[in-house]
Amino acid sequence: MTIKAYGAHAGDQPLVPIDITRRATGPDDVRIDIAYCGVCHSDLHQVRAEWAGTLFPCVPGHEIVGRVAEVGQAVTTFKPGDLVGVGCIVDSCRQCEECADGLENYCNHMVGTYNGRTDDAPGHTLGGYAQAIVVDQRYVLRVSHAEDDLAAVAPLLCAGITTWSPLRHWKVGPGMKVGIVGIGGLGHMGIKLAHALGAHVVAFTTSEGKREEARKLGAHETVVSRNPDEMAAHRAGLDFILNTVAAPHDLDAYISLLRRDGTMALVGAPATPHPSPQVFNLIMKRRSLAGSLIGGIPETQEMLDFCAKHGITADIEMIRADGINDAYERMLKGDVRYRFVIDSASL
Amino acid sequence: MTIKAYGAHAGDQPLVPIDITRRATGPDDVRIDIAYCGVCHSDLHQVRAEWAGTLFPCVPGHEIVGRVAEVGQAVTTFKPGDLVGVGCIVDSCRQCEECADGLENYCNHMVGTYNGRTDDAPGHTLGGYAQAIVVDQRYVLRVSHAEDDLAAVAPLLCAGITTWSPLRHWKVGPGMKVGIVGIGGLGHMGIKLAHALGAHVVAFTTSEGKREEARKLGAHETVVSRNPDEMAAHRAGLDFILNTVAAPHDLDAYISLLRRDGTMALVGAPATPHPSPQVFNLIMKRRSLAGSLIGGIPETQEMLDFCAKHGITADIEMIRADGINDAYERMLKGDVRYRFVIDSASL
Repeated sequence: MTIKAYGAHAGDQPLVPIDITRRATGPDDVRIDIAYCGVCHSDLHQVRAEWAGTLFPCVPGHEIVGRVAEVGQAVTTFKPGDLVGVGCIVDSCRQCEECADGLENYCNHMVGTYNGRTDDAPGHTLGGYAQAIVVDQRYVLRVSHAEDDLAAVAPLLCAGITTWSPLRHWKVGPGMKVGIVGIGGLGHMGIKLAHALGAHVVAFTTSEGKREEARKLGAHETVVSRNPDEMAAHRAGLDFILNTVAAPHDLDAYISLLRRDGTMALVGAPATPHPSPQVFNLIMKRRSLAGSLIGGIPETQEMLDFCAKHGITADIEMIRADGINDAYERMLKGDVRYRFVIDSASL
Repeated sequence: MTIKAYGAHAGDQPLVPIDITRRATGPDDVRIDIAYCGVCHSDLHQVRAEWAGTLFPCVPGHEIVGRVAEVGQAVTTFKPGDLVGVGCIVDSCRQCEECADGLENYCNHMVGTYNGRTDDAPGHTLGGYAQAIVVDQRYVLRVSHAEDDLAAVAPLLCAGITTWSPLRHWKVGPGMKVGIVGIGGLGHMGIKLAHALGAHVVAFTTSEGKREEARKLGAHETVVSRNPDEMAAHRAGLDFILNTVAAPHDLDAYISLLRRDGTMALVGAPATPHPSPQVFNLIMKRRSLAGSLIGGIPETQEMLDFCAKHGITADIEMIRADGINDAYERMLKGDVRYRFVIDSASL
């Protein structure tokens, strides 16, 4: 089956329309007509070959929502017409401890929605900047939001789960004071989710201009991190910090805001290292610096259901497929509130 | 009460005999005739003013064991003749959450056994390189080892609790594979305690010569960290790592040995930073890098009782008080198996 997509033929080339093929729908497969696909910063890194190992042609996109078009004979939980989503993972080994624990994101053989190994042509996976996708039912998520919300649900499949997973793992909830560092695609979801989980949310931004926006997203307090007095007011006051900033920055400024036994989880990996964090800051209050990578399939479903119940979606700006190169340039400047989403009908 | 002690009058001076005074035994106080005092690397840093804020005269020593000589009228749990110990803490605020949780080590007003603030002359606390010490009963530990073991019990009060506290906090026990990095004063206790707690212990050393020693201490496996193949054999294989090395080194080499959700706890703070750890290594398996500082009073008692029950003491080399300056030089060269202990009778 040949469909229209948007992708690049080389790292130094813009994205252009290309035709790709999808495999026939196998017994365990779900074929999805893609309605919308979110635009993640990872898409840009991969397609521009800023990360090692990009395979071309490269079709990015792992924040996919749409409608089931066809199901294989062994598929019982989805039927044509269902609203569904696909995130960053389309396969894994299904045999390791991580897969057994529903943490396919930590499986050593996790297959990414794009640039992953596959037997399908052309030998690597092609993502959601496309009209359709065929995915094993195990990696398909149910979407129970209203159809009108569908475009704004797309970013939940990466930005949503990437923030949800650490918030849940470190048991964020009522009675906890939680910091969210960086108010972008990830951070704006972190604020919404931490708020809905019942925590007292303190948003950290370098930009005075985002202070009011952070409040509207659900932050109870906002801190402009360039202001030492505002930072000092939270010293040893936070139970958990979710740090969404991928650019190298002073981690100690945040670690020192953690209470005893507090953890700061990083979800962004900088291209060059952060300045080395002071061991003293970790030792003095038994603090932890941790990392977290997207999330597993069961917790992605949990997040989608939670968001549907609480009326949570991403704040998005819809674009046409042929606007993707301009969108990348704006994304690099931080000029997006807070996620671009491609309208697949424009393909 | 004037007693003999050993201390320094300035950071660039050797330790010499000095006379010091101890306060009269108050209602809540225990006066202890010191039998032995362990020699910790911190003693050297403090007395040589390598750490900021050293107050002189400086009498180091926070691995103290001895016999109760006198108790105040409000003291009911100790009586003259009892074997007791004093570690790194002789007072704290007694009102904060940390004190309430028995984690006085994380109290913002914790008073160190030496160089801490006190109303006693000369205005700062003087440690265990001395004939006697007077300590509030709340900070005195009971020693139930046999009297013959007393000298080898002394290092448990710092080296023991500093390793015990993180091993317990991160729930080290049967079924876990635990790495101990560095086989010195702290590390040799870490191996003994992790072994006694039922874990499978992997000891890491830079020195081929310590391989056999590590096995004798209780390590089930030993790794010479300069050997890449030996390191690679443990990739993603350890549940917890206790890193006792204070010198700057490549943390990633160890972080990459942690399984999913594993933690490496640092108990040494280097004078200059470690190379910055790679965020990627933390993110890919949700690993944590943490710190831990000595331990609280209740867990110090728990550790002493555990060690008495399991016949655990430190491996020591006894010295006379007038050998302390030579001992420091040997300690700097790593030439001690594994802790010097001052025989207080030599004062």
